[in-house]
Amino acid sequence: MAGKFITLEGGEGAGKSTQAPRLAAHLESAGHTVCITREPGGAPGAEAIRELLVTGDPGRWDAAAETLLHYAARRNHLTDTIRPALARGEWVVCDRFADSTLAYQGYVGGVDKDFISEIHAQVAGDLTPDLTLILDLPPEAGLARAQARSQARSQARGEGEDRYERMGLDFHRRLRAAFLEIAANEPERCMVVDADGDMETVAARIKSAVEDRLEI
Amino acid sequence: MAGKFITLEGGEGAGKSTQAPRLAAHLESAGHTVCITREPGGAPGAEAIRELLVTGDPGRWDAAAETLLHYAARRNHLTDTIRPALARGEWVVCDRFADSTLAYQGYVGGVDKDFISEIHAQVAGDLTPDLTLILDLPPEAGLARAQARSQARSQARGEGEDRYERMGLDFHRRLRAAFLEIAANEPERCMVVDADGDMETVAARIKSAVEDRLEI
Repeated sequence: MAGKFITLEGGEGAGKSTQAPRLAAHLESAGHTVCITREPGGAPGAEAIRELLVTGDPGRWDAAAETLLHYAARRNHLTDTIRPALARGEWVVCDRFADSTLAYQGYVGGVDKDFISEIHAQVAGDLTPDLTLILDLPPEAGLARAQARSQARSQARGEGEDRYERMGLDFHRRLRAAFLEIAANEPERCMVVDADGDMETVAARIKSAVEDRLEI
Repeated sequence: MAGKFITLEGGEGAGKSTQAPRLAAHLESAGHTVCITREPGGAPGAEAIRELLVTGDPGRWDAAAETLLHYAARRNHLTDTIRPALARGEWVVCDRFADSTLAYQGYVGGVDKDFISEIHAQVAGDLTPDLTLILDLPPEAGLARAQARSQARSQARGEGEDRYERMGLDFHRRLRAAFLEIAANEPERCMVVDADGDMETVAARIKSAVEDRLEI
């Protein structure tokens, strides 16, 4: 049986990396082998690119350079991780994918959205997620969660992956609107999930959204 | 007086990095301030991307990922180094630029050349080199030079930037043909310089080519 490709999207602190392993566990309990992965990253080359993208000064890259770095990483992730997993019949659960580039660098960053679509077509061909869950949350709540997480992490490891979190509230408001517009433009692929609530509540919403759309 | 943008192109071991400072010295002796730079790299972000591109296993990136990484680096190099130098009236001498991506990833690597042109237009806008010198050499001679250089460097530093040198002779033959075709397609911008000869002879040819084309 063919695997399915599920992506989780949304702004900072929406709960994607908390919910991805919960969704994976649910799919595994239904008998599927699950490849849980993330972007930017998810393969050795792509993780090296991630390091360049998520650390350092907010002005380190302009939006055009970011777009190209994300798609270089995505190409590596697709060829080395996602396509092989789907070919083995696994279900792939990916924390962020192409909609993040369209939202962050396109809608908010000002890179030509048609240009992003052209790059996407070259990089991904006809591979499209079977389902995209857009975790939606007021940006104030998401940023507060993300900042608490970064503080905990930087105490543990010395440096936080906080480059986007430091971009300010207006940036994150525009980001939320962008994800909602992407969802509205592709209702067959995308579902918006209310991510304001405790971990269990959101996990239950995600489970119900997936069962609504896919035969699991 | 406005600065000029000169790029040096060609395969491995053609002498670009030996000749770039000699050309810069000649231009300085004519009274210009010269910014001497290189690709991939030439700005802090771009140099970090260079590290990902030129080290490691030859199969680390496919040609599409390489194209995107080169253009991410080029964007950073243009915004942070090349455009500011030209705006200050400096002459820019750059060791490799966009023709290398077109030759390595497009002609030889099989990435759609129209796609590369679209990325180029987005990344560079209307900035085009005033003169491109294509240093031409039989690939056997170029590879022998490049390998001698890498051996000396790896004895000194421990690791060589030799990922492309290890790609084999057929690769480098196709690369030479690609650069010659690029030069034939844009004769107003490009000049082919015979790079087979000692350092002084080639430097004299480059000097003469530049004086032939630009008011220095």
